[in-house]
Amino acid sequence: MSDGSMGRFYGVGVGPGDPELMTRKAERVLRAVDWIFHPAGTSGGTGLARRIVEPLGLAPAKFRPVSLCMSRDRGADRQAYRRAAEEIAAELRQGRSAAWITEGDPLFYSTFLHLYEELRRFPEVRIEIIPGVTSASAAAARAEVPIARLDEKVAVVPAAYGVERLQALLEEFATVFLLKVNGVFGRLLDELAALPRPARAVYLEEVGTPAERVIENLESLRGQELPYFSLVIVRGAREG
Amino acid sequence: MSDGSMGRFYGVGVGPGDPELMTRKAERVLRAVDWIFHPAGTSGGTGLARRIVEPLGLAPAKFRPVSLCMSRDRGADRQAYRRAAEEIAAELRQGRSAAWITEGDPLFYSTFLHLYEELRRFPEVRIEIIPGVTSASAAAARAEVPIARLDEKVAVVPAAYGVERLQALLEEFATVFLLKVNGVFGRLLDELAALPRPARAVYLEEVGTPAERVIENLESLRGQELPYFSLVIVRGAREG
Repeated sequence: MSDGSMGRFYGVGVGPGDPELMTRKAERVLRAVDWIFHPAGTSGGTGLARRIVEPLGLAPAKFRPVSLCMSRDRGADRQAYRRAAEEIAAELRQGRSAAWITEGDPLFYSTFLHLYEELRRFPEVRIEIIPGVTSASAAAARAEVPIARLDEKVAVVPAAYGVERLQALLEEFATVFLLKVNGVFGRLLDELAALPRPARAVYLEEVGTPAERVIENLESLRGQELPYFSLVIVRGAREG
Repeated sequence: MSDGSMGRFYGVGVGPGDPELMTRKAERVLRAVDWIFHPAGTSGGTGLARRIVEPLGLAPAKFRPVSLCMSRDRGADRQAYRRAAEEIAAELRQGRSAAWITEGDPLFYSTFLHLYEELRRFPEVRIEIIPGVTSASAAAARAEVPIARLDEKVAVVPAAYGVERLQALLEEFATVFLLKVNGVFGRLLDELAALPRPARAVYLEEVGTPAERVIENLESLRGQELPYFSLVIVRGAREG
């Protein structure tokens, strides 16, 4: 894809886990670009994006892993993102094209956001963001839980930053997604038990992967070790 | 696809407008099923799902339009959904398969939810819901607005039911999506002007279609007639 002009960069969401839930556009772009940068590392979630695109059968040499530690303190990874941004900008200047792949949607709790910040230091870089199916949509589909009807509101809350707000949120929002419930699951169970009106709650982990679990009896999970990609959908009292 | 057993029904999200933002799974299923039911009618949005799948070149005889008036009072359309559910159940009993297509995601402000309620009267019907890219994700990608970082919360609010809550929501949520802002746009402009801290707001309509518009100067739209598929993303003061 080198014709002397500046190459293009794509932030590509590859969907929640099932390779078939990738968009046609993501597939086309990933086949066309020269380089595919992707998060890699040891902890929760890094490497998933790469596994999702595996069935496309792309040349392994096209992939450029970026090692991340994904600790809550993002300072540790800033250097890695900065270096990746520099490498990407250098490739684009050579007329080559590059993508960053991320599970789900690139703007929704994604590694892409960190890279995007670093890429802003290169205003000449032309960026196209390709949205993807989120884990929230995939989880609702799998559990057959309506997300929102015409007049309803939806809240998405990282559980670690809002589990204690559940009751208040359910006063206003028909559906509340609590993301990454590992770590605060015991507290979440207590919040659910204390709700003044019963709500439907469904736990899902690793949606769309072979390790997927969908569990309606949340109490059965009390005390268990839960994975990073775990969420709970809480649907208010208005219906079952 | 008739082998004597009960056929399967699929609720298929075909994405926000750009046919390329359909998932690979939606494409595969729509090619495979015997019947594709879809909303049709005269008012806002009906017919869009059909237009999105047009590039797949499927046999026109496979499509079964369901006429809807899409008034806010859904009683008027209930009969149409009920009849569609009966027709779908009858086809499945014959061993044929069927899909209902909807723009965006089937569980996110979609016609599918009404059909789904009627289909529950036929417990023998096996349903698979195929999630799609939402207009919210597509709009954020187009406008390059981060939806949420690790510790941030997101609210989705139909503007007609919550524009007056904007200031309060921005105290808690980093990003607020106001959907279908036509009808309350003047009030929204007033709410935005009254915010104690400046927020970034971007207006988008018909995202991913040839009629798409992305407008950052919202005041320039005051007094204009806006289409049904219009939304505003408000990103709180934390960043630009």
